[in-house]
Amino acid sequence: MNGISIGLLGLGTVGTGVIKIVEGHQEELMHQVGCPVTVGKVLVRSLDKKRDVEIDENKLTENPEEVIDNPNIDVVIEVMGGVKEAKAYIVRSLQNKKHVVTANKDLMALHGAELLKIAQENGCDLYYEASVAGGIPIIRSLSEGLASDRITKMMGIVNGTTNFILTKMSKQGSSYEDVLKEAQELGFAEADPTSDVEGLDAARKMAILATLGFSMNVKLEDVVVRGITTITQEDLHYCDQLGYTMKLIGLAHRSDGRVEVSVQPTLLPTEHPLAAVNDEFNAVYVYGEAVGETMFYGPGAGSLPTATAIVSDLVTVMKNMRLGVTGRNVIAPLYHKELKTDEEIQSKYFLRLHVVDKAGTFSAITSLFAEHGVSFEKLLQLPIKEADLAEIIIITHTTSKKTYEDIYQALNQLDVVQSVESSYRVEGGK
Amino acid sequence: MNGISIGLLGLGTVGTGVIKIVEGHQEELMHQVGCPVTVGKVLVRSLDKKRDVEIDENKLTENPEEVIDNPNIDVVIEVMGGVKEAKAYIVRSLQNKKHVVTANKDLMALHGAELLKIAQENGCDLYYEASVAGGIPIIRSLSEGLASDRITKMMGIVNGTTNFILTKMSKQGSSYEDVLKEAQELGFAEADPTSDVEGLDAARKMAILATLGFSMNVKLEDVVVRGITTITQEDLHYCDQLGYTMKLIGLAHRSDGRVEVSVQPTLLPTEHPLAAVNDEFNAVYVYGEAVGETMFYGPGAGSLPTATAIVSDLVTVMKNMRLGVTGRNVIAPLYHKELKTDEEIQSKYFLRLHVVDKAGTFSAITSLFAEHGVSFEKLLQLPIKEADLAEIIIITHTTSKKTYEDIYQALNQLDVVQSVESSYRVEGGK
Repeated sequence: MNGISIGLLGLGTVGTGVIKIVEGHQEELMHQVGCPVTVGKVLVRSLDKKRDVEIDENKLTENPEEVIDNPNIDVVIEVMGGVKEAKAYIVRSLQNKKHVVTANKDLMALHGAELLKIAQENGCDLYYEASVAGGIPIIRSLSEGLASDRITKMMGIVNGTTNFILTKMSKQGSSYEDVLKEAQELGFAEADPTSDVEGLDAARKMAILATLGFSMNVKLEDVVVRGITTITQEDLHYCDQLGYTMKLIGLAHRSDGRVEVSVQPTLLPTEHPLAAVNDEFNAVYVYGEAVGETMFYGPGAGSLPTATAIVSDLVTVMKNMRLGVTGRNVIAPLYHKELKTDEEIQSKYFLRLHVVDKAGTFSAITSLFAEHGVSFEKLLQLPIKEADLAEIIIITHTTSKKTYEDIYQALNQLDVVQSVESSYRVEGGK
Repeated sequence: MNGISIGLLGLGTVGTGVIKIVEGHQEELMHQVGCPVTVGKVLVRSLDKKRDVEIDENKLTENPEEVIDNPNIDVVIEVMGGVKEAKAYIVRSLQNKKHVVTANKDLMALHGAELLKIAQENGCDLYYEASVAGGIPIIRSLSEGLASDRITKMMGIVNGTTNFILTKMSKQGSSYEDVLKEAQELGFAEADPTSDVEGLDAARKMAILATLGFSMNVKLEDVVVRGITTITQEDLHYCDQLGYTMKLIGLAHRSDGRVEVSVQPTLLPTEHPLAAVNDEFNAVYVYGEAVGETMFYGPGAGSLPTATAIVSDLVTVMKNMRLGVTGRNVIAPLYHKELKTDEEIQSKYFLRLHVVDKAGTFSAITSLFAEHGVSFEKLLQLPIKEADLAEIIIITHTTSKKTYEDIYQALNQLDVVQSVESSYRVEGGK
């Protein structure tokens, strides 16, 4: 093999980073792979756009076929994003016996199983490290480093935008709206932040992680999702006071062969390793039966971090090519997926209530919990100034989601309860 | 291939864990490797000893040749520890075309390069993930996940015993001696704790990490080592007050093609990700030019965590065997090692002094620093009760090790300085 030629689909932030690393680290790449790596062709939306990276104009094209049907290109790197076109180009590349590296979480969450199958049928590699948690080699760690273990729980802070927002809200005491604006100005949040703040982006990543970590075909629609838009300063204040930190946690939990996968604002004890993951950083906490607690921390996005993950995949593909062992990385799920019912999902919960401040209120509430067999781990009652109301904050002991939801409904019916202000899951155990 | 047979050298804590995982996870292993894995022979010190794991007595032997010369054994797992015998057995195994997985940090730190060369010459794999930071897949992350990046700095909490001791000293306010005793009772420290508390164990791991991360042949004698035995409650108290956490940090730093590797008690800002790594946990912080900050956290020792790393290596070896691509994992260092001089090593420092509490003292000290061109980042002066002395705590701005050592010598000569109580490095940047 005289050299390996790569084709890029897309030349945005991440694509630019890939070119910078491939060109800037030629010596190291050559040392690892044993032959030069060159950028052959790059699909761009418009030839006229100004670029952040120097590149021979003859290598740019607006025609995808010049990449995916190009006989001189060995590996296609998909960094264009989106689902429909990206999928079509990847399928065509694989059918043309080109290996593929992608950073596309939407695509992998929706069509990962199908694409991996096509790759295998064509003897091609398909790697996707960059699709989850940018620069953190979590896919590799799950599929290789922890391969011999049985993973029972993963908790991920896998969306940098929401972690930035929650960190600033907690540390500055600012409102959600103000911090979102700041994040948008700093480029940590999109003009339309919906996909991030509503938890959809995190859900895609959790579907990918759960599929891999549990060796089950977890689909995006299996992930229960709730975003961060309703979190208030009061909630964060009480979290802190009770020794917890609020994070948007992607949770994947397996027990007795059944799984739950969710993304939701969650209280973690402040001493939990994930509680110290701040600003736009990402981290994935993995609990394995044998290894115990591990955590992988790093940048979740950004041009060069994401490009690092892509080029590492590229190095793996190139090594496989030289060894003649491509198309072997795909492992079909070992287990049949069974989702937990609401009776089986176990957790603690945080509740904040506004109640009428009179005799009998407290007793009515505690009786309701007692009837459902749920006891309190922590309890806080405070008067609300300038109103005949009191604020009650409860952290329950572990109960089922079903029971908790019954209690939640019943609380809303109680005369003494003026409003259930907020309600969050509390995690921390294994 | 009908099945793969492994031989163990040693059946202590880690060896027992390996057998438990191999026997307990047959289904997962079979799924990944495509053929059954069996334990063929196990070298033990004495056949009569009671075991923590069920094993057919016919598989045990006191004769190493029944493992390393056994034609039925494909992979040898070395978990006996020590250097001389372990090395001889590994060399013989490799010469017999057996692949080797080892957890032996002493051996890899001293003879890693030589053993990897012998492995390659014999077309055999030699993997050693478990030799550094137990259950954390850091070797794999450095050699694969971050392979395309240029790593400039690694900081590791790679010794669980000392991290346990420093955590308890900080949180409980107990003395070094008391906590060491507690650690020994809990089994977190050896009866003779020298290798841990003097930093030697950590130094071996840092030599391995630096060799791999910088692609240079870093030797154990290149690592400057200082242990934790002289750390006092006062030091930890002032650390905390000034916003720092004391950790035993293995530091490997590269700039301008030159490196320094050290193990020493180091102050980290409390918001640094490593500062939150407590108790017996390990973590390795890696800074790469492209990826930025990443950190890998997990258990640094223990039967099952370490065994997880070994079995993951075993899975890699078995996959390589099935693909016919063994003996390819060895990459000779790319760069020639050049150690930094004391003029080139740059850092901040923490100093605690006892000084005579009279006019002119402060000026004498500040003049000394000014003469050497070193300014202060933080300064604290407090009277010492029941003595005509004051305590001065200084955190310097960045300076060279050479300059700092000159100042340190000169301080000891100053009349107004009664004693230099303690002195530590301060880290935090990239």
